[in-house]
Amino acid sequence: MDFEEKVKAVKHIYHGHVVDLDLETVELPDGRPAKREIVKHPGAVAVVAITAADKMIFIRQWREPLRQVTLEVPAGKIEANEQGEPLKTAQREMNEETRYHAENYELLSTFFSSPGFSDEKMYLYHASNLTPVKKELPQDKDELLEIVALSRSEINAAIERGEICDAKTIMAVLFWQLMEQ
Amino acid sequence: MDFEEKVKAVKHIYHGHVVDLDLETVELPDGRPAKREIVKHPGAVAVVAITAADKMIFIRQWREPLRQVTLEVPAGKIEANEQGEPLKTAQREMNEETRYHAENYELLSTFFSSPGFSDEKMYLYHASNLTPVKKELPQDKDELLEIVALSRSEINAAIERGEICDAKTIMAVLFWQLMEQ
Repeated sequence: MDFEEKVKAVKHIYHGHVVDLDLETVELPDGRPAKREIVKHPGAVAVVAITAADKMIFIRQWREPLRQVTLEVPAGKIEANEQGEPLKTAQREMNEETRYHAENYELLSTFFSSPGFSDEKMYLYHASNLTPVKKELPQDKDELLEIVALSRSEINAAIERGEICDAKTIMAVLFWQLMEQ
Repeated sequence: MDFEEKVKAVKHIYHGHVVDLDLETVELPDGRPAKREIVKHPGAVAVVAITAADKMIFIRQWREPLRQVTLEVPAGKIEANEQGEPLKTAQREMNEETRYHAENYELLSTFFSSPGFSDEKMYLYHASNLTPVKKELPQDKDELLEIVALSRSEINAAIERGEICDAKTIMAVLFWQLMEQ
């Protein structure tokens, strides 16, 4: 079966700081036209970081799209000078958000966050052998962050009360569960 | 620590078929202003559906944001008349996409897909005791779909070759792994 949609026209609706929005007119395999709304994103990384005390590191922050405080694994978008090198993003974000250096990084998974309307690709790493960074990178001035390390039972409680509530972080928790088995 | 951002102004950039785009001007807790790009989405459901032969059901389709064919768990967005009743969406999407009726639905997880820039909330269900539907609902005319049932080893191969590549589907696979233990 032929699934491919041919792009007939692209209208750039918005060019932003984090996302762009395109409206594509495509031709379906049977020749009919259709519209596709596409949120362009530079990609992002997320990190499963486990301390020597067997706790997972989280970042507490305000998420304006959700109008709530969340606990998420350390994460951030891939900057222009890091394209094609997501590991650099992981190392930078670990420094900026957690102040930890990790000796080892293992890529656990890559995935698209919302394939129906966005091209955002996420690289999920497992960082181990953590030590405090020697040189602290400057933090994003628009981000107010708090570092939190949680045990397994504390993680379950945070999921129950809805503070851990996003895909990459729940995926990180599932990977950690599977790692121990 | 006070994290909350106060909304000072909202500019509606785009109103679309699947998403809307808002640009918010917020006031950070320390009083400084910041901009937030927010992709509004009505929410979605996804279903872990396991057949009597112990295979997981996937939908093969073209995803224009990724410019590739993917295998994803049955899923779809919550329609206006289903707001607050995501189980109805799950049942409808199962009928439209897989032609199966499930006797039992269990909510495995709810999560936000991309909390940095979108309010999209996903409800992930486990559907069991599948039987063919008695009455087939009409399919979305813009969606060309193929139903595929995969064993565990076939799933791993599809992840390896990048056809299974999105967050909710990889999460569904992880949940299935944990269910069997």
